[in-house]
Amino acid sequence: MYENIKNHIRNVPDFPKKGILFKDITPALENAEIFAEIINALYELLKDKKIDKIASIDARGYLFGAPLAYKLGCGLVLVRKAGKLPAETLSETYDLEYGKAIIEVHKDAVNKGEKVLIVDDLLATGGTTKAACRLLQKLGADIVANVFLIELSDLGGRKVLEEFAPTISLLQY
Amino acid sequence: MYENIKNHIRNVPDFPKKGILFKDITPALENAEIFAEIINALYELLKDKKIDKIASIDARGYLFGAPLAYKLGCGLVLVRKAGKLPAETLSETYDLEYGKAIIEVHKDAVNKGEKVLIVDDLLATGGTTKAACRLLQKLGADIVANVFLIELSDLGGRKVLEEFAPTISLLQY
Repeated sequence: MYENIKNHIRNVPDFPKKGILFKDITPALENAEIFAEIINALYELLKDKKIDKIASIDARGYLFGAPLAYKLGCGLVLVRKAGKLPAETLSETYDLEYGKAIIEVHKDAVNKGEKVLIVDDLLATGGTTKAACRLLQKLGADIVANVFLIELSDLGGRKVLEEFAPTISLLQY
Repeated sequence: MYENIKNHIRNVPDFPKKGILFKDITPALENAEIFAEIINALYELLKDKKIDKIASIDARGYLFGAPLAYKLGCGLVLVRKAGKLPAETLSETYDLEYGKAIIEVHKDAVNKGEKVLIVDDLLATGGTTKAACRLLQKLGADIVANVFLIELSDLGGRKVLEEFAPTISLLQY
């Protein structure tokens, strides 16, 4: 499936550090037909779910979350790194390979019971998305699915997220 | 013009520091009708310009650049902070109020002569966008316009950018 899209994902060795084979999505974004194909394919998977809002994760999540929200006709909620959102926030700390990170969401971003998709570019171990799920649940969101362009299946992110919502990904590696 | 959109931009005092009145776009994004109105209004201003690519600035620029690229049917180029892009980059250093910042673009992101829009959420002094214009020009792009949701007119960004391309903004303050 989606071989045409896969052909526009570039493998960059040793980024961000030695031994990592980075999936570079920029060739897919730069090609108008491929970018449209990605958004249209995600839209087809999600159009019947009656979504109220997409919560999208800073920064590459916005590349897919924003056009999907526009196409689905729903609102867009920003999940951002600590210190970026100006009004009152909830925050969640999560573990990285070395150290910790914090993400935040505005307290008034979601109304109780709203149907929300969480959208990011890539699912690896699921740490960031899990933190986003926790934040959105605290706000009373009904998380319908966690949505990704790319899923690195061997890293087990889908398992980590299953207590919150099903995972939907377009490309699996 | 666009009073309906302006009513969904929230003023947050003293962010990111004392004395700054921050224009918070998140209420406009969270409202499906207002978000669609923004993208549709920008599309109407740009649809006849035969754009090949939108170059969008990390991270809030992606919120408008990505749906506009989808709607215009053009490609999307990422202008990112230093160290985020995995392949070969060009970089440009520019002055901030205190210190300096670096933005980068992939060397193969644009073909010579392609018609490009630069899209960000807000035009203040124009420093970041000017650096983006320099990068895109080095790649041989034909910069058609610099496009913003919000222009803070008193800060003179339009003047700073006029050597590169005209400024198009939806909301002026």
